[in-house]
Order: sequence, then structure tokens, then C-alpha cells
Amino acid sequence: MQITGQMLIGKKVVFGLAGNAKAIDPSTNQEIEPVFGFATTDEVEQACLLAEQAFDSYRTTGLEQRARFLETIATGIMDLGPVLIERAAQETGLPVARLEGERGRTVNQLRLFANVVRDGHWLDATIDSALPERAPPRPDLRLQKIALGPVAVFGASNFPLAFSVAGGDTASALAAGCPVIVKAHNAHLGTSELVGRVIQRAVADCALHEGVFSMLVGAGSKVGQQLVAHAAIKAVGFTGSRSGGLALVTASGQRKEPIPVYAEMSSINPVFLLNQALTSQTTTLAKNFVDSLTLGAGQFCTNPGLVIAIESEAARQFLSDAARALEDKHAATMLTPGIHQAYVKGTAHLADISQLQLVAKGQQAESACAAQAVLSVCSGATFLSTPALQEEIFGPSSIAILCKDFEEVVAVASSLEGQLTATVHATTDDHAHARKLLPVLEKKAGRILFNGFPTGVEVAHAMVHGGPFPATSDSRSTSVGAAAIERFLRPVCYQGFPAELLPAALQDNNPLQVARMMDGKLTLAS
Amino acid sequence: MQITGQMLIGKKVVFGLAGNAKAIDPSTNQEIEPVFGFATTDEVEQACLLAEQAFDSYRTTGLEQRARFLETIATGIMDLGPVLIERAAQETGLPVARLEGERGRTVNQLRLFANVVRDGHWLDATIDSALPERAPPRPDLRLQKIALGPVAVFGASNFPLAFSVAGGDTASALAAGCPVIVKAHNAHLGTSELVGRVIQRAVADCALHEGVFSMLVGAGSKVGQQLVAHAAIKAVGFTGSRSGGLALVTASGQRKEPIPVYAEMSSINPVFLLNQALTSQTTTLAKNFVDSLTLGAGQFCTNPGLVIAIESEAARQFLSDAARALEDKHAATMLTPGIHQAYVKGTAHLADISQLQLVAKGQQAESACAAQAVLSVCSGATFLSTPALQEEIFGPSSIAILCKDFEEVVAVASSLEGQLTATVHATTDDHAHARKLLPVLEKKAGRILFNGFPTGVEVAHAMVHGGPFPATSDSRSTSVGAAAIERFLRPVCYQGFPAELLPAALQDNNPLQVARMMDGKLTLAS
Repeated sequence: MQITGQMLIGKKVVFGLAGNAKAIDPSTNQEIEPVFGFATTDEVEQACLLAEQAFDSYRTTGLEQRARFLETIATGIMDLGPVLIERAAQETGLPVARLEGERGRTVNQLRLFANVVRDGHWLDATIDSALPERAPPRPDLRLQKIALGPVAVFGASNFPLAFSVAGGDTASALAAGCPVIVKAHNAHLGTSELVGRVIQRAVADCALHEGVFSMLVGAGSKVGQQLVAHAAIKAVGFTGSRSGGLALVTASGQRKEPIPVYAEMSSINPVFLLNQALTSQTTTLAKNFVDSLTLGAGQFCTNPGLVIAIESEAARQFLSDAARALEDKHAATMLTPGIHQAYVKGTAHLADISQLQLVAKGQQAESACAAQAVLSVCSGATFLSTPALQEEIFGPSSIAILCKDFEEVVAVASSLEGQLTATVHATTDDHAHARKLLPVLEKKAGRILFNGFPTGVEVAHAMVHGGPFPATSDSRSTSVGAAAIERFLRPVCYQGFPAELLPAALQDNNPLQVARMMDGKLTLAS
Repeated sequence: MQITGQMLIGKKVVFGLAGNAKAIDPSTNQEIEPVFGFATTDEVEQACLLAEQAFDSYRTTGLEQRARFLETIATGIMDLGPVLIERAAQETGLPVARLEGERGRTVNQLRLFANVVRDGHWLDATIDSALPERAPPRPDLRLQKIALGPVAVFGASNFPLAFSVAGGDTASALAAGCPVIVKAHNAHLGTSELVGRVIQRAVADCALHEGVFSMLVGAGSKVGQQLVAHAAIKAVGFTGSRSGGLALVTASGQRKEPIPVYAEMSSINPVFLLNQALTSQTTTLAKNFVDSLTLGAGQFCTNPGLVIAIESEAARQFLSDAARALEDKHAATMLTPGIHQAYVKGTAHLADISQLQLVAKGQQAESACAAQAVLSVCSGATFLSTPALQEEIFGPSSIAILCKDFEEVVAVASSLEGQLTATVHATTDDHAHARKLLPVLEKKAGRILFNGFPTGVEVAHAMVHGGPFPATSDSRSTSVGAAAIERFLRPVCYQGFPAELLPAALQDNNPLQVARMMDGKLTLAS
């Protein structure tokens, strides 16, 4: 498949005329061919109108048809073969093995949602029988969830496959029955076109309305804002920076009709090392922590940016072991020159904070955009009095906080902003302390880990990749895992309907074989 | 129980010093004793701090304890006896029988949520087992929903019991594990104090933290805005006017941390009379329509403000029958002088629209604040070209739209803003038309009724009292029925937890006996 620099608007391919850009190879800072044209106002409008036109037919596709559409996309991505991995590696600086793993995650995610669609649990089918003898009589009431409408998706720079054109937001929105318009990330335009064309072809192969999918190219501040403001768009999925996410939240606030904006933004993912765990596994914890910190040049939403312990001999040993492990780490290429510059600036700013001491640095950078890892340390009191230390530095930088006692550990936890994750390392002897810490962490994070590290987000039914602000703009949701579909649905009640006009999920004989709440009792499909 | 004019802040009773007001008897426009003091900034702050302090202990109460708390409130409301009904009747002008019915609905709603809490389905308990042999290994992942945090509730004028201090928002938020601060509606201050004191006493009787419930008095523009802006408040429930709801949405937009605002605002609830139904049941439909229109002086969120048919002999007969029925209707007292003035102004404005003709009026008003019902008529073309006709006139006013053909009926449906309800009257012969109309109505309304009238909202599992903007600010939710609890919850994932630290809902032996999703398969409690 050829990369042409064109956008995908329904079944058309269009070279945008409102400006242009090329992708950049971050290992050399060189531009990569071809040039990509940016969408004009009219082209954004066309994509929105097509999505609106596609909505009714797409939202009422049968579950099996919709599931097969998702599977067709998954197969198409695998069929692209090495060209996809090569282009993604060139555009992002990410290693081939990592990208192959991410491709596997992306297609598994599409297949998970295919099964979620078939299962139909997301329909929340609910039936309350008529009670004609009651005074007043109760009418027959039946509820199912339906799709919200066209969704605008903004991919993330750090997962060019799994959180991008065919990533979790797109997969869950398509699963829900929503047409999708993706604003391609400028950091991986060629990767986006390749995957976008797979979806465009799957739409045609599955005989769906062409407006089910479009992909636009352009600046977030123009194309992105126009998309979010458009009356046809009924929800937004975004993964990226706090400033980028908040700009979309603000733009949506200008709309006449409020819509949900699911922005997954920033998180520093505190790791709490309780005393007995720290004492009994000092060296292992230090090594695993540094591995998690430097994985993928620290460019994970769940990167451990804080590690908290009580000041002790073991804590000092942990820092010493972590320093040794960190000093061995090569500087890895970051995703974009902009991300690299922000990292250099952020770590330089840390060096200016006098009460923060450097523990260790990784190896020096040898190529453009390579990031030298940094571990710093401060006291609990310093952390509590320095709000700037809570700002995410995207990349392999972390701060160790040594607290004077467990009460200060709890105070540090209580002072935190909302997080995607919080982690506790504890042995059985630490459980008394863990019991005091957990209620605090439950209010701060969408996922709490025990004796693990936060990088690595499983795509599963019980996953929560979300959390209180500023981790996300909507703590009621997750952007990873089966429950992500719920973001794009709303309930409708059908009262007193004749049998032949009821939606399939709500017909008496349960033709879709879905679990249903019947008169307040949950019942499984037979 | 004595009405004192005091607010309830935790276990204290406090007379606010930031201004004051008395309730008004709308049948006479006379003030009713006693005077109520308005909350100072400090008093709002105290209530918020208490709610924040109560949150951890309250959100982790056992399901049975929380259910009993809701039932204790229900019993307490019944135990108030006639004093509650008498005060509510005086403050609202609503008939005693209606208020007794509403009281029954209110306590049934509390009891429904007690059972919802016990059932535990709302926890969304989900378990994905560890797969240690997989490469990479999958950790043990378990998800449950937890309460969002303290909730600010703004009651509605038109349901002084069921959508007020102990109404659906309060009941569902308390059921979810959220402390509640109610801003009492100034139209029924005495009713609010009586019910508030029942909740305050139930908090004490159930040995809960005093901050689980507070009730403040004051202006929405001051106390309301301060509440919505407060960092301790994590969600807002509101039922009322579009301007009032949007003011809260805007106020919440100024917060650093975005929070969900569930505002149920305005709806004109279109009723579509398809040809065969209209022809075969003309007189019955006309009578039932007028009964629904004038019920409770038309002061229902689901009042039928539009009735749409194709121009025909039967349609003209329907209008003639409706006119006769309407002319017999007494003018009923509205809830407040302000609502009455807005109704008089709104209907006077309609009379100025030259393409709108008067069909009939109800009997003239004999007391202060009594509303004369009005039915007007216009063509489909007029409706489509006059957006002002979509503005809700709260009270017994409705517009009939006579369309030139079925395509124009669909065009009218497509032009509508979001609604709480949409209704279709159809016989089997009309089903072909109904099939074309329903996909349009699904996108417009939270509830679609067949051969009924929209007034009357059953409290049940399958009810949706919600819908696209401007019916509500968040179409993903319902404010009536069991699913209302979902508004106040967020998911948390527990990864790799030791058994003894897992929440009860997620322990292997399922001690709460709740339905759970196990490795992607829904399982019932044993």
C-alpha cells in the first residue's frame, strides 16, 4: 500500500489544501516523504455531514455485521505486513519489537470489541412488565442503550497504533454504533494513512455507509477545534497532553449542545513502597522501578513519575540501587522533537529547584531527540510545599519522596491530583498501613496496583484506564478495556410498544440472546 | 414537627444571616410564616467540608446499612403525617390528593433504591483472572464502581417531594454512597425543612457521619453557584428551567476540575397522531390529550406541548373535540407567582405570532396564579420556519401542528431539539409510517411512548427520564428509575490485590452475592 499524503473522507481520498506538513524521523530530525495536505473548513464539514448521514444505518447494523466489520479492520491491519511497522518505526523512533507488540494489542482490541458487540451486555436491556391491575396501572417499559452519534477521535503520539486511528477510542466508538472521524496525529501521518485506508476499505467490504469513517489531517487548533464544535459530533475521544485535552474541553464548552469529551491527559502515577516490602526486596524493587521508568523512553501515560517511601536505611539503599540501574540505561529516542524539547526543559526546570537533589542520570544522548533518564529526590515536606513537583514531565524522569513517617506518606497521597494509576508495594506485614493508604488512593486513581509497576495496560473487561482530573476529564469512564464502549451510549425507554416495533434486544423471545434485567432481576441469555 | 426557618448543616440547625425569605401561597400571593434565613459563604463552606469529611465512612457503609438508611428516611416521611401534605399544599397550590400520591412515589423511590443498593448490580463487579502462563502474563484484574463524592442537589418547584429534598437525585446519590447537600427550593421552604429534618434524624438514627446530609437555603445565583464551584462537590443534580440549568453548567465550567452536571431542563414532548389512530379514535384522543395537557396545571416536565398530525377531516375533528374539552377545564393555581407570570407572558407572546391561530382556551382564572389553558394551531411550514415555537412554555399550553403530508411530519420531527419524551399514536395500519418516524424520535428523546400520554413517569428499572439537550445536559443518564444511581459512580480497577485487601464485592467467594462479569461471562449470584 502506497502512502500518498491524502485524507480519507468517506470513500474519497482528498489532498487537503489548507496547509501541509511532513512527518519527521525523530532519530535524525529529518522530514519523511510524502507531504500531507491539511483539511479545509469545507473538508471538515464534508466529513461531519457524511458521518451524520451514516449514523442511522450504521447504528442499526446487526451485532454480527458490526462485529465482523471490526474483525475485518483487524485482519486488514495484519495484512499490511512490515510496511506498517517500518513506517511507524521511522515516524516514532519506537523499536520494531515494541511496535509489533503494539500492533498485536491493537488487533486484539478490535477483536475484543467484536466479541463485546456480539455479547450485547452493553445494550443494558431492561424490561419492566406492564402491571395493568395496579392502581395506577404500570405500562410496559423496556430500555436499551443506543449509540450517541458521530465521534471525533484524537490519537496519541505515544501509541501510533493502539491509541490512534484504529485504537481504543475508534474501536469502542465503532462497537457502540457511532461513525468515527479521526484527526490524524501529525507525529505519525504515514502510519495513520496506512491504517485509515484499512478502515476505509473495511467499510466498503462490509457494505457500510461510506460516512462511517473519515480521517482528516491538520492542526489540532484548527481542524480539531472545528470538529469538536460541529453540531454533528456527539462525543470526543482524546489522548494526549493536559493543555491539548483542556483546549478540547474548552472548545466543547462553547457549543450550544454540551457533549461528552473523554480526554485522557496527564498522570504521574505514584508508587508507594511500604516498609517491609522495601526492606525485603530493596534491590529487585529498584531494578524493576528503573525498568518501568525507562520503558519506551518513559513515554507511557502510566509512567511512574513519583516513588514514595519512609526515610530509612532501606530507602537509601533503594536509591543507591536505582542510581546504579539508571546509570546503565541508554538514552532512547523520543517520539518527536517537540516532546524531546519539552522533556529537556522539564528536567532542566527540576534541576533549578534547590530542595530537590539529583540521584542519578542515565547515559547521555547520542542521537537527536534521545532522552537522558533522571531520578531526583526530595523530602515529603518539600513535595507538600512545592505544587510544581506534581506537573507531569513526559519521559523517563521520576522523583523519589522520602517521608519522615507514615503519616507524611498519607499526607503526600492526599495532596496528589487525580491519577490513572497508584501502586502499593507491600508484604503482609505492611497490610495495616496499606489499609490506611488504600481509601486515599481509591479517590485519586482509576487503577490501583499491588506489587507491580503501572506501565502495561491490559485490554480486558476489568481494566480501568481513567481516573479523576487531571488524569481524565471524565472520571466515570475508561478508555481501555471492554467498558470503554459505555462512553458512546445513551439509554432509551420504549413504553407500551407493539411487539413488532420493539428493538430486537427487547423482544419477548430475546432473539439476540442477551442478558436482560427482567422486573428487577438479572437474567442470562438462555 | 415545627417549621423554624433554619437550615440543616450536618447535625446543627442554623438560621442563615445572608438574607431571608418566606414561602408564598400562590393561591393568594400571601407570605407564609416563618421567615427562612439564607446561608452565608461560611455556612456553605461548612456544609461542603462536612460532606467531604463524611465521604470515606459513608461510601464504605455496608449495603444493608445504606439500604436501611434509605428506608428510615421513607418511614420518617410517612410519619410526618398530614403536616407535610398541608404545608406542601399551601406552598405549591397543588391538590392534597396529588401531594399524597407524590409522597407515595417519593417513599417508594427511596425503597426502590434501598433494594437497588442491596442487589449490588450497580457495583458492576468484574473479574479477569490472572493468566500467569501467557506471554506477557496477565495480572489479576478486578473492577467495581465506587461513589464519586459529595453531590449538590437542586430540587424542582413542580414536585415538592419527589424531585426535591428527598427526591430522586438525593435518593440515588445517597444510594451510590455520596453525601448530599440540598439547596432547598425557595418555592417550598417549609416542605423542604420538614423533609430535611427527617433525613437529618435518619442520619443520626443510623449512626452515620453527620456530614452525609445538609440542607441550605438561599438564592441559586449565590448559594447555588458557590456549591457548584466548591472543590468538595463532585457532581450536581438539578431539575428546573433551561436558564437555571445552563447557569449551573456554566458555573461548573469555571472549575479547575470538571464535574458532571445532571441538569434536567426543558422539553415540549411532541405527540404524533398517525392517520389511522387519529381517524379511529378521534374523540378519545382529544379528551386524553387535553387531560394530559392540563394535569397539574400543565406543570410537568413531560407535558405535551406539541401535537402533530397530517391535515385531514379527522385532524380538524380532533381540534374541535379538543377545543370542547379544553373549554371545560378550570384554571388551576400554578406553583409560584414567577411561574404564573412566565406562563402569562409566554402565552401572550404566542398570541402575537400571526401564523399561529387560537383553537381554544380553558376557563378564566379566578384566583391569583391560576393558569388559563391554551391550545393553538399552525401549519407544518410555519412550525419549521419559526424556531421560537420550540421554546417551552411551562404550563397548560400546547400547539397543534397540521402537516401537509407524512414527509412534513418527519421534517417536523427532525427539526426538534432534544426531548424527555416523544409519543406516537398508531394502529397496526400506521406501523409503516411509525417505522419511518421511530429512528428520528430515538435520536431526539429519552423515552418513546406508544398510544399513551407522556405525563406520568414510572419509577422503575427500565425508565429513562432524560434525553438529548436541552431536555438534559447529559443524555447518557436518567434522573428517574434505578439507573439514576449510575450518575454518581466511577469505576476503579484493583490489580494484583491480596485477597484480604480486596473490596467485598470482588472477593473470590462473593460474600455480597452480587452478579459479576467473570472473564467476560456474566454470572449471577449463586
